[in-house]
Amino acid sequence: MALFVTKFGGSSVASVEKMRNVCERIVEMKDQGNDVVVVVSAMGDTTDDLLKLAGSVGENLKYRELDMLISTGEQQSAALIALSLIAMGCPALSLTGWQAGIKTDGQHSKARIRDIEPARILQEIDTGKVVVIAGFQGLSPEGDITTLGRGGSDTTAVALAAKLKADRCMIFTDVDGVFTADPRIVKDARKLSSISYEEMLEMASLGAVVLQPRAAEFAMLYNVDVEVRNSFNNNPGTIITEVAKMEKQRIVSGVAHDLNVARIALFDVPDQPGVASIIFKTLADKGINVDMVIQSAMRDNRNDIAFTIESNEFNRARPVVNEIVMKIGASGMSYKTDVAKVSIVGAGMQSNPGVAANMFDALAHKDINIHMISTSEIKISCIIDEGEIETAVQALHEKFGLDKVD
Amino acid sequence: MALFVTKFGGSSVASVEKMRNVCERIVEMKDQGNDVVVVVSAMGDTTDDLLKLAGSVGENLKYRELDMLISTGEQQSAALIALSLIAMGCPALSLTGWQAGIKTDGQHSKARIRDIEPARILQEIDTGKVVVIAGFQGLSPEGDITTLGRGGSDTTAVALAAKLKADRCMIFTDVDGVFTADPRIVKDARKLSSISYEEMLEMASLGAVVLQPRAAEFAMLYNVDVEVRNSFNNNPGTIITEVAKMEKQRIVSGVAHDLNVARIALFDVPDQPGVASIIFKTLADKGINVDMVIQSAMRDNRNDIAFTIESNEFNRARPVVNEIVMKIGASGMSYKTDVAKVSIVGAGMQSNPGVAANMFDALAHKDINIHMISTSEIKISCIIDEGEIETAVQALHEKFGLDKVD
Repeated sequence: MALFVTKFGGSSVASVEKMRNVCERIVEMKDQGNDVVVVVSAMGDTTDDLLKLAGSVGENLKYRELDMLISTGEQQSAALIALSLIAMGCPALSLTGWQAGIKTDGQHSKARIRDIEPARILQEIDTGKVVVIAGFQGLSPEGDITTLGRGGSDTTAVALAAKLKADRCMIFTDVDGVFTADPRIVKDARKLSSISYEEMLEMASLGAVVLQPRAAEFAMLYNVDVEVRNSFNNNPGTIITEVAKMEKQRIVSGVAHDLNVARIALFDVPDQPGVASIIFKTLADKGINVDMVIQSAMRDNRNDIAFTIESNEFNRARPVVNEIVMKIGASGMSYKTDVAKVSIVGAGMQSNPGVAANMFDALAHKDINIHMISTSEIKISCIIDEGEIETAVQALHEKFGLDKVD
Repeated sequence: MALFVTKFGGSSVASVEKMRNVCERIVEMKDQGNDVVVVVSAMGDTTDDLLKLAGSVGENLKYRELDMLISTGEQQSAALIALSLIAMGCPALSLTGWQAGIKTDGQHSKARIRDIEPARILQEIDTGKVVVIAGFQGLSPEGDITTLGRGGSDTTAVALAAKLKADRCMIFTDVDGVFTADPRIVKDARKLSSISYEEMLEMASLGAVVLQPRAAEFAMLYNVDVEVRNSFNNNPGTIITEVAKMEKQRIVSGVAHDLNVARIALFDVPDQPGVASIIFKTLADKGINVDMVIQSAMRDNRNDIAFTIESNEFNRARPVVNEIVMKIGASGMSYKTDVAKVSIVGAGMQSNPGVAANMFDALAHKDINIHMISTSEIKISCIIDEGEIETAVQALHEKFGLDKVD
């Protein structure tokens, strides 16, 4: 008898009919003699609808109250899934985050799970019930309801799997798993049967979000095997695990891309200590995330500095950047919002030199100009023109033989 | 500086605009130097919508899970009211039932408040915040969310006022207060400036529901003065208090009526011990509430027994009654669903003989036939034909001079 922790996202529980489909899966696992813990997100657009309602109340919304408001979405779907299971003859019980013993810090709207006190969950499992838990939420040390931010239900599921020492953690979503590239762009894209935590993290941070980065981090930290699979079919999914447990070592596991990129360059930045700090601290203080940064070679004690941000933050960033130019005495700035990032990710890269050269070669062969480059141990990213992204992804997919991996 | 406990019902918080109106009232009380605790119901039809959603899941719904589901409605409106107050510059904080320390028994869907642990509420009041509490809900000894049943938010407010020793408990609703009769039927109906707990209870149980009976019971038990007033205007309301505190003693305070009545008669019921018990226990076991009962004089060791039930339960009751007729060996049954109940209520009645005679006289003068009569210390009710109810209410209102009370 095994213990499964399963998670179903908002699209999987968007209607009573879809919930029934979810419940049939749960009943099947239960009938096979397993204990099942289910983590659910809010139905479809519930969270966005509630946020819109709150937005119509006024400005300066307090996160504590927003958490109080939007946490009701997951509570509702947990109760409805439990009701649906009971109606199908399967004993079940729903729990809110606080009832499930999920303790977080006090950072409302982006709280982090500190610990889980699983007594109630274990007690209900012992009586043979399926325990349905409202994802995305917990309780702060002050006794207030917190939410975990984007992808919080994934994190709830992985954290529960770790704490309960579950035999498997299954994240049901609306795709079959992690692919070697976006199947909408690359016809030959293949689903990976497994991928390492580190690769998943890099893929996720690059926009290929199948498992939320924080959930992947949690899985890595507690060494939980997570299977991502489709809630609408029975195909096997992708198992996210540690490198050592993977059947095959691949040099490159996937090609990811991100269109939500804008490039900003500052010219003739004085080469003085503290200037970079002014630039990036000012942006951070305004909540603007900087991704890649390059600094050109110095000339007359002045540098050019270029960096990328999310292009949907560009309008907010622009006045901030102009202010920075004045403050640091740069000669000016330029920007380009029609750029994109293409990346190759692979745990085997670190022990295989020449991967970067192969990547640049593949892009050069297609006459694609590279504006910026950044590398990590298991990832190489290039900024290119947005119009060339499909060609680039296809070329790299072919170059690294990803149409042949399993 | 006084402490007010205020309660706003679903129609008062049905939209963000209406919430703003509620918040303006709260801010006004606060600006006058008072501490304010606010109890809210769910927005408009939220509870019914959630119940409908649950109904589409299946049969045999579990009350524990329904409570989990519908309690989110009050949590949402509490958060939205708090957000709205904060947006208006008034410090505020929302609390769920369990956060507010409301402890109930474990009877899901109709739980009773056992105790309130007000530490968190008092702590937040001390920091100058308006505390907005989700009504209608509490926490069971098992740590589960419970709901209090119809009118539960009224009960929450009265219980909080008792526990916090509030200076005033104000129930804001969509009517001006308690009237001497339904103003839609009696043009001269007047709003009462005060009414006793007992009278309010009788009025409420007769269908004139301004304050829920359980809330009135609670107020009587803990001697809390409750003011019922209109959330859409500034008219003074009706204060529900103990008889001794009322300015004027009236013999009759109001005329109530109820159209939701059906009369059932059983013929030739054997006069044996235990027969009445079989009849009424069988009905109770099926959840059918019996109101008035009369038994005719015995003839040949057999009686006729007539009783009333709510007419919307008639279809459910009919087969049960047929079964009872067989079981006890009665000769048959008859029923009448087009009857209604008219009642006069007044705390002064107990010390004024002849009130009943005056009532029967007034009805006789209008040629209204009385089918059944029941009396309590402060109430007399008659079952009459439904078509005569308006005439009866008007005649009684005039007979007892209710157009002249304050």
